[in-house]
Amino acid sequence: MIILGIDPGLATMGYGILEKKKNGDCRAVDYGVVLTPKEEGLPVRLAMLEEGVNRILDTYSPEEVAIEELFFTKNITTGIPVAHARGVILLACIKRLGKLYEYTPMQIKQALTGYGKADKQQIQRVVTSILGLKSVPRPDDAADALSVALTHAHTARFGNQFHI
Amino acid sequence: MIILGIDPGLATMGYGILEKKKNGDCRAVDYGVVLTPKEEGLPVRLAMLEEGVNRILDTYSPEEVAIEELFFTKNITTGIPVAHARGVILLACIKRLGKLYEYTPMQIKQALTGYGKADKQQIQRVVTSILGLKSVPRPDDAADALSVALTHAHTARFGNQFHI
Repeated sequence: MIILGIDPGLATMGYGILEKKKNGDCRAVDYGVVLTPKEEGLPVRLAMLEEGVNRILDTYSPEEVAIEELFFTKNITTGIPVAHARGVILLACIKRLGKLYEYTPMQIKQALTGYGKADKQQIQRVVTSILGLKSVPRPDDAADALSVALTHAHTARFGNQFHI
Repeated sequence: MIILGIDPGLATMGYGILEKKKNGDCRAVDYGVVLTPKEEGLPVRLAMLEEGVNRILDTYSPEEVAIEELFFTKNITTGIPVAHARGVILLACIKRLGKLYEYTPMQIKQALTGYGKADKQQIQRVVTSILGLKSVPRPDDAADALSVALTHAHTARFGNQFHI
């Protein structure tokens, strides 16, 4: 089964593609980022982002998609544009697949390290090790996307699931 | 020229359709709301919202769309779902029309009353009077959508404009 993990963002959206084998093992198929230029207005960047998501869906035909939930405690100025972007990403995925899965940062940490307060570096080392990669995926957004995909591969039952 | 005004929201999105005549006078063609049920998950509600926006675009074929900007000073918990919704609305409009216009609440107040701190009731009375309506449009979201459409009709040059 092919799983797409997404770390939502407006300037940089991370994606990670995993193949989950029948024995439960996972292999990284690809990972990367979709970028939108800061010089463009928000509506145009949202259209670019949708195009990017659709291109990934076309290329890898994932059966399941897992997306990180937004978690903002203070910086609303950053949060609002990212939430616009995340709305567009959720829409593109639910339209294509009819379902998707969401995981909070804490669920991801818990699933991958057994500890809800692990830091970003610990998570990245775990992802790198489980997937047998030679080095930590770069940029961070791609590593984060792989971590949500891996969380889904391991714990699909615990995420928030939405069906059309 | 047909102008669509939108007051973005997730549970309730207001819309207002104006016809701007050659002499600059405006007539309300229609107004209303698109509702999404709280019982559904966010991705499903976003898909419903996109459907609603596309239905409005199909029905009225507006030449220009004006959308209110989000302005949150404190409540980030409310702001995040609305920003998801607004992302989807911006995307649907920019895809259809290739351009759109955004106005801040202050620009709307300034345009309709000449006073940037007018309250909601003052704005609604001005909209009702300019459009020659028998009573204040209900719900508030529809009245707000008409007010952004009217702002655009009067002051198109001052809003943020985005082109694909």
